[in-house]
Amino acid sequence: MDNFIFENPTKIIFGKDMENSVGEEVRNYSKKILLHYGGGSIKKTGLYDRVVASLKAAEIEYIELPGVKPNPRLSLVREGIKICRENNIDFILAVGGGSVIDSAKAIAMGTVYDGDVWDFYTGKAVPEAALPIGTILTIPAAGSESSTGSVITNEDGWYKRSVDSTVIYPRFSILNPELAFTLPKYQVACGAADILAHLMERYFTNTKSVELIDRLIESTMKTIIKYVPIVLDDSTNYEAWAQVMWAGTVAHNNLFSTGRVGDWASHSIEHEISGIYDVAHGAGLAVVFPAWMKYVYKHDINRFVQFAVRVWNVEQDFFDPEKTALQGIEKLEEFFKTIGLPIRLEGLGITDDRLEEMADKGTDSDRRTLGNFVKLGKQDVYNILKLAQ
Amino acid sequence: MDNFIFENPTKIIFGKDMENSVGEEVRNYSKKILLHYGGGSIKKTGLYDRVVASLKAAEIEYIELPGVKPNPRLSLVREGIKICRENNIDFILAVGGGSVIDSAKAIAMGTVYDGDVWDFYTGKAVPEAALPIGTILTIPAAGSESSTGSVITNEDGWYKRSVDSTVIYPRFSILNPELAFTLPKYQVACGAADILAHLMERYFTNTKSVELIDRLIESTMKTIIKYVPIVLDDSTNYEAWAQVMWAGTVAHNNLFSTGRVGDWASHSIEHEISGIYDVAHGAGLAVVFPAWMKYVYKHDINRFVQFAVRVWNVEQDFFDPEKTALQGIEKLEEFFKTIGLPIRLEGLGITDDRLEEMADKGTDSDRRTLGNFVKLGKQDVYNILKLAQ
Repeated sequence: MDNFIFENPTKIIFGKDMENSVGEEVRNYSKKILLHYGGGSIKKTGLYDRVVASLKAAEIEYIELPGVKPNPRLSLVREGIKICRENNIDFILAVGGGSVIDSAKAIAMGTVYDGDVWDFYTGKAVPEAALPIGTILTIPAAGSESSTGSVITNEDGWYKRSVDSTVIYPRFSILNPELAFTLPKYQVACGAADILAHLMERYFTNTKSVELIDRLIESTMKTIIKYVPIVLDDSTNYEAWAQVMWAGTVAHNNLFSTGRVGDWASHSIEHEISGIYDVAHGAGLAVVFPAWMKYVYKHDINRFVQFAVRVWNVEQDFFDPEKTALQGIEKLEEFFKTIGLPIRLEGLGITDDRLEEMADKGTDSDRRTLGNFVKLGKQDVYNILKLAQ
Repeated sequence: MDNFIFENPTKIIFGKDMENSVGEEVRNYSKKILLHYGGGSIKKTGLYDRVVASLKAAEIEYIELPGVKPNPRLSLVREGIKICRENNIDFILAVGGGSVIDSAKAIAMGTVYDGDVWDFYTGKAVPEAALPIGTILTIPAAGSESSTGSVITNEDGWYKRSVDSTVIYPRFSILNPELAFTLPKYQVACGAADILAHLMERYFTNTKSVELIDRLIESTMKTIIKYVPIVLDDSTNYEAWAQVMWAGTVAHNNLFSTGRVGDWASHSIEHEISGIYDVAHGAGLAVVFPAWMKYVYKHDINRFVQFAVRVWNVEQDFFDPEKTALQGIEKLEEFFKTIGLPIRLEGLGITDDRLEEMADKGTDSDRRTLGNFVKLGKQDVYNILKLAQ
């Protein structure tokens, strides 16, 4: 187990009707905020009206910036930064899923930074401060509601890059499972893949003596595997949604990173896919992860056996670990198929061959490697994409 | 699953040699602190010297208050409050186990309160503020290093009472598993019982649809059950200690309380035992918990079956749930015995009969009930103590 520092200050406010207290929460920080959201869905569901009513009751002035798209764009972030600066805004409320929250985080960092906010995503600068943000989560998926991450897409070249910093932990996040009732099934499935991916990225590690966190991750995976099919079948099942939503947050709040080095190659590879093709992140992960596993499982077959047996209840073949390991990967693919996700690039509608280009871009022309469990060069990334075809 | 608010701001600094950075951490809060600790053990091990060196390097002035005993006393808390007030101290550093940390928390609340600190423990007042505190943990057990709890014993009548408040979350806690290497075996075992008890108090709930947290709790119990015997056998096994120490914190940092109502009757009953007899809290819990289980298991036999099968790997008898449930309780008793703990009052050296007195005191002469899984009156508490005889 590695030394670590763990600190997660996000206040989680979980349950029915909790969004109606958002005004009171915001008032602890600000009297004038940016209200950031996506398309029209929060207006259709009535969430927008409830949020605005709560803000007004708390006498909080707000300026709206809607229009966040999946794979949130740098141009909108820049617009948000301009608005915050010109209006002396000192708090951002993100109402939506991971894209809205990630966009809010970028605006929060950029507003208090003299240079260009993209510097943080290229590694040219490290964020030292950010405006405080709060969130009302509508999609269990990205875990951004209690994470240090933000992923933004730069339309100039379609680069999708991430930043990781404790300065962008939300101060509070409101999680009401009822808000997920109206999600389209495909989006629910993509969210499930994203949550599982966050767990698997952390699970596949070379760090030894990490059993507590191994088991906690397995528990969270089992929860997703059990309850996501239930909510797909019964979209207003509050209790099942509550399990999925809380699991999605716990999966990515960094507790499961403690004392170990995660992998994250699959996320990087997926960013190249969704950067170019603008597919849903979760769907991209459902395609990349099984391919990545098939490419690397021999590196630590025992860990893949543990994954198969403990997470997927595979009957262990004690004389053939490889068989057991591969059955675990098959079970993962089956699960993705069952919930309606593609497991090959073709299923994402990607039929042209830009694998070489993606492998090149993802590794900066083979100048950097991806992942930690196995360090992947350009050729490895190409091979994985080929397995995903 | 119930609505909940979860917020845990404690910064965990985990690993080898981490205590050497304590001065830098403290400097974020204060230049003049109370250094609070127990007997001489931190001097014998050299920990005291390293802490003082780090404080001096960071130019932090400190006033010492040693002498915290197991089942920490109100009189020392009052002395600490006096020292803090007279010297304008604005931070408390607790170096030790749960008793030292609980004592520091009491001083932290009492210093900024006009009335008597005991008011918080009797429920006469609710703490609204406290001095910030930091900890260096030496005993994995109480979980106080990242909890909202503090338990103090009032020598005037030997009342042992607790308080629960977010204002006493430590700002940081330093966890170096090496600091546990020198613990006596009995203390290690008592710590293990305390950790398991924190997990079981949360596990046995009437709240439905709580599977994620159920599984996370089971995972943490399994970690304790596996690694405590290893550290008892091999006291300098860093990797095993790391699992135990981090599990001990995770067990009690309130994540596992989210969305559910815990029980806590066994803790209350144990407080009556250690309040009178001054036995180790963990040893008292090892005696009370199996007796409590035998008294209440019929209330929700399925939960006890799940406990037996998932935590203790009991082979389920599908036609006789009661048998399976009882086997789980037996396994718990066996575990306590294996690690050297008593499982009856006699083993604690308690051979006189003050059961009636304890049941009376614990329930305020039957004016309040204990626990939530099953609400226990005075007669119930008496019956449980009788089962523990």
